[in-house]
Amino acid sequence: MIFVGFGFLMTFLRRYGFSAVSLNMLISALVIQWAMLVRGCIYEGIFKGNKFQVRIEEMVTADFASATVLISFGAVLGRTSPLQLLIMALIEVIAAQVNGWVCHDKLHAVDVGESMYIHAFGAYFGLAVSRVHYNKNAQNHHKGESCYHSDLFSMIGTIFLWMYWPSFNGGGSEGDEQHRAYINTYLSLCACTVVTFAVTAITDKKGKFTMEFIQNATLAGGVAVGTTANMPLQPWGAIVMGSVAGLISCIGYRYISEFFSEKLKIQDTCGVHNLHGMPGVLAAIAGAIMAAMATQEDWGVSLYEIFPYRIPEPDNVTDAFKVQFPSLDFDSGKGWSAGKQGGYQAIALAVTLGIAIASGLIAGFILKIPIFDQVCEEEELFEDLMFWNVPEEEEHEAEGVARKYLHDRNGTDMTENKGTNMVNIKL
Amino acid sequence: MIFVGFGFLMTFLRRYGFSAVSLNMLISALVIQWAMLVRGCIYEGIFKGNKFQVRIEEMVTADFASATVLISFGAVLGRTSPLQLLIMALIEVIAAQVNGWVCHDKLHAVDVGESMYIHAFGAYFGLAVSRVHYNKNAQNHHKGESCYHSDLFSMIGTIFLWMYWPSFNGGGSEGDEQHRAYINTYLSLCACTVVTFAVTAITDKKGKFTMEFIQNATLAGGVAVGTTANMPLQPWGAIVMGSVAGLISCIGYRYISEFFSEKLKIQDTCGVHNLHGMPGVLAAIAGAIMAAMATQEDWGVSLYEIFPYRIPEPDNVTDAFKVQFPSLDFDSGKGWSAGKQGGYQAIALAVTLGIAIASGLIAGFILKIPIFDQVCEEEELFEDLMFWNVPEEEEHEAEGVARKYLHDRNGTDMTENKGTNMVNIKL
Amino acid sequence: MIFVGFGFLMTFLRRYGFSAVSLNMLISALVIQWAMLVRGCIYEGIFKGNKFQVRIEEMVTADFASATVLISFGAVLGRTSPLQLLIMALIEVIAAQVNGWVCHDKLHAVDVGESMYIHAFGAYFGLAVSRVHYNKNAQNHHKGESCYHSDLFSMIGTIFLWMYWPSFNGGGSEGDEQHRAYINTYLSLCACTVVTFAVTAITDKKGKFTMEFIQNATLAGGVAVGTTANMPLQPWGAIVMGSVAGLISCIGYRYISEFFSEKLKIQDTCGVHNLHGMPGVLAAIAGAIMAAMATQEDWGVSLYEIFPYRIPEPDNVTDAFKVQFPSLDFDSGKGWSAGKQGGYQAIALAVTLGIAIASGLIAGFILKIPIFDQVCEEEELFEDLMFWNVPEEEEHEAEGVARKYLHDRNGTDMTENKGTNMVNIKL
Repeated sequence: MIFVGFGFLMTFLRRYGFSAVSLNMLISALVIQWAMLVRGCIYEGIFKGNKFQVRIEEMVTADFASATVLISFGAVLGRTSPLQLLIMALIEVIAAQVNGWVCHDKLHAVDVGESMYIHAFGAYFGLAVSRVHYNKNAQNHHKGESCYHSDLFSMIGTIFLWMYWPSFNGGGSEGDEQHRAYINTYLSLCACTVVTFAVTAITDKKGKFTMEFIQNATLAGGVAVGTTANMPLQPWGAIVMGSVAGLISCIGYRYISEFFSEKLKIQDTCGVHNLHGMPGVLAAIAGAIMAAMATQEDWGVSLYEIFPYRIPEPDNVTDAFKVQFPSLDFDSGKGWSAGKQGGYQAIALAVTLGIAIASGLIAGFILKIPIFDQVCEEEELFEDLMFWNVPEEEEHEAEGVARKYLHDRNGTDMTENKGTNMVNIKL
Repeated sequence: MIFVGFGFLMTFLRRYGFSAVSLNMLISALVIQWAMLVRGCIYEGIFKGNKFQVRIEEMVTADFASATVLISFGAVLGRTSPLQLLIMALIEVIAAQVNGWVCHDKLHAVDVGESMYIHAFGAYFGLAVSRVHYNKNAQNHHKGESCYHSDLFSMIGTIFLWMYWPSFNGGGSEGDEQHRAYINTYLSLCACTVVTFAVTAITDKKGKFTMEFIQNATLAGGVAVGTTANMPLQPWGAIVMGSVAGLISCIGYRYISEFFSEKLKIQDTCGVHNLHGMPGVLAAIAGAIMAAMATQEDWGVSLYEIFPYRIPEPDNVTDAFKVQFPSLDFDSGKGWSAGKQGGYQAIALAVTLGIAIASGLIAGFILKIPIFDQVCEEEELFEDLMFWNVPEEEEHEAEGVARKYLHDRNGTDMTENKGTNMVNIKL
Repeated sequence: MIFVGFGFLMTFLRRYGFSAVSLNMLISALVIQWAMLVRGCIYEGIFKGNKFQVRIEEMVTADFASATVLISFGAVLGRTSPLQLLIMALIEVIAAQVNGWVCHDKLHAVDVGESMYIHAFGAYFGLAVSRVHYNKNAQNHHKGESCYHSDLFSMIGTIFLWMYWPSFNGGGSEGDEQHRAYINTYLSLCACTVVTFAVTAITDKKGKFTMEFIQNATLAGGVAVGTTANMPLQPWGAIVMGSVAGLISCIGYRYISEFFSEKLKIQDTCGVHNLHGMPGVLAAIAGAIMAAMATQEDWGVSLYEIFPYRIPEPDNVTDAFKVQFPSLDFDSGKGWSAGKQGGYQAIALAVTLGIAIASGLIAGFILKIPIFDQVCEEEELFEDLMFWNVPEEEEHEAEGVARKYLHDRNGTDMTENKGTNMVNIKL
């Protein structure tokens, strides 16, 4: 999912497909290894001489860690060098793992689909980097757009992400919770897709659809339901959540992105603010509200499975409670109230945004150090040629064709004019 | 499977890729929700105030329901507006669910891979709609063809459908039946693929292959074995079935499609009649024959697992029978004979075709109501530009190139001739 | 995996995408059936009138058999006709199955990811065929290169192979071994990917990346760890293995391929020697070394599970041994030493290379029989047009555009010059 989905989702730029799909692969491969080490430091204390184990579980969490970095990559796509991206990835993994540790292990805020810890974090980190790297040359750049076939490649990414999103949101849970996560995510995505098509056509002057919206906003439903996916949202709740997500994501692509890039000087190539940022915050708020409203009457045993700190303190556990919920671990309870759990969920969101933006700004300034390759000039932006040996025969052929024609007309060879007549039928 | 497979299979049109892959997604997302509601009405009686549950099972059946609609979409691809497609989808889901309920719950006809209820139904419904919408302008339309890269995108769809077909046919069964369904489908697809390559080359004037055949006819084996996939066909039976399917599908693409569009005025953009229609009917006939020939000696306990109505009536169940097949539910038996089961299978095929064609014609006339956007004119057909904001820089660049050349030659700017010199290097 | 992965990996040629993806499908479909029969002959003796069963297991081994053929296909891609490929496939399957039977059932050499029996065998068989079919016209052929979108299609294949490689290497084992296979393969691939990016940039004159390396060499880690994937390599061992594989694969693409094609007259369209050949041999050597170094102290029960012949002979099994490893089958032991197992692993490598090259040469000469279509002339090579009805409207449109311009300029129709002005804006 990470490789196909994110890789192809970013291929929409007409001259940046090689970089999008390949750097995606490089970053993932590096981050997977790096995240294992960083997690080992944080959770297992390898500084103290301990060792840590590499199991399937570590592989999955490391894979998720690369999603965070790829979201940030989306914000600066086409405006950074591979070296800058690698440095950014190394910094971001540390910040994201620290954030996950603080919010999850210390604040006990739950986030089953990691909408806060991955999506919101990755988006706001990337936007902070992007703010520092604001580049006037990238404004309305003609290569910052798609072409017909690059849009189709991008749809491969969209559809893969769409399909695997239920598994993504349900991956961290089991049993009833997992089933709920699958169904809530699925319904939310369906609703979001329908709303996106409607909104993109309604807000267009000619009533036409735009691929950028379809490629991205259809996925916002998966982000928005991430935190609450394993909670008893009910089908209508999931559909409402998906619809709201589709709506705000479309509004983001239509109006907010321009405001961000022109007024706030925050450029966002893939619109990660609209797909990951705002829906991620929405998910977190929904999670806090659900947590604050959760009661044992409505949720049953799920309440204590999802929020283990709401189990009464060991001294307060009654025998009736033990009989009713025999599967729980009664010694671990802290007796949190609904409001306290909701409050900590909200604090976790604030902490996530704070760490993401602060570390993003720091990373942005580090990347400005000139020893790392910089991509600044207009012709370097959104261009594979900068870092790739691109097959160029199209240009030669097109040039050859044109020369041949004029040659046929004139009886002379135009080779001497080659420089000025440079043909650029770019695909 | 539904999203990637059908979505990309339909991208073969040179100027209709956006619509194919995106409307596919929109329709699926809508139909999944709508089919859950419709099924709730039919099976659970929500009219009577009952509620129904949304489980993984409902999600899968709703997903299958969208396959039916997408097959019909293939028949009218490029000749309808998004609004018409949505109306068609809403009508078709109701008709298809009623048909499934009649055939499966009332006639007790089995169809494990849903070759009748999905493939044949979807194809003939779509063809009926297409007949009503016959459009002379679409005949031999130059945009009703593929280009090099659109054919490759389409192969992504083919290969995904091919790969997941065994899971599709085996999804509805368990244990031995499921294993049989996997193996029969796999062998049938292999045989069908080999036959398709052979037939497409043999029937071509120059002995060359044609992508349209490879993209579609290679899948006919999966459809043709759908009804009988879980029955003891034997490997040779599956291979024969796949070979016959490949043969008739190729003949369909080569000869029958033209006859349909020119004589019967039934246009069929994707050739769903050849891929889903005829192989679906073949599957149903094979299912009826197998059912009529099935004996306890040959099939053992599978006979009663596949056809539960063939279990003897409760009064006629002998003790020896109970000892031999302890896993069966002896109270549910109706004592049907092989001939009766085979007959009901055949009746189900007739009912399916009848409901599909009748409801398709009705839907076709409803879609002609002018309040729904109509796509009629030659330049509107098979064209993404009608409903999409398509990136058009290719044209500008090509135009710019040409202008630059002439400018270099003449020392004058040709901008004033822009209108007449409009360049159209379409990708 | 076989279909998507190999199919699209080979689409990188600019004018050979149809053949690559479709012939891949044809060969797989044929080989799956043929391999079942061949395996039936070898293992079940259907010559003696025995029957054999077709189970899921047979389907998987038959699917793997097609991987061997597709690797050889990669070596001769674009320089053979479909008929030649089919003949080659039929011969190769027999040779590969005999090789697998000799090495696995007679020499008892283990190869969990089949790096020897599939990758090394397929590569050297294909190279032997390619040597016999050396064709001067194919040297530095301009169509033997990629174009921008064909490289992106090829990345679809790369990413699918990458993702599913852990399952491929782990598919043949269970429990602890399977977990180890997943993790070792995953880490090896990650390390290989990072090294590949580094080496491709470092060895390039301008420090740029090249897609050919990324598409292929990133996968070498999966091949190189194939034989030892289920052994206790430790994370660092897997990372070292992947890094070495990436390094030699890149060196292969950069320097060795040219040496092979110019000096040894062995052309290798996809560079299978670099991706499958050398890493496969590396895997086999690593397997022999691991086997020769394996001790009960380090490996525990895994030693006897992976190498069952190392269980002591029935007479020498002590009671303490039985108590320590109760799950083993003590009657099957042969009491092999570490050195003996390692030696047999090395012999298996030699046998594999010998059979592959010998049978490849024989197949090569058989394919030269003129009754099979030959592809020799320069314009026939790497060209879909030879065997496909390719949509050609691009050319017509481009031609039309050019004619229109000159017409507008001259007031005359250029149709009479059509032949000489043939435009070739190939995509």
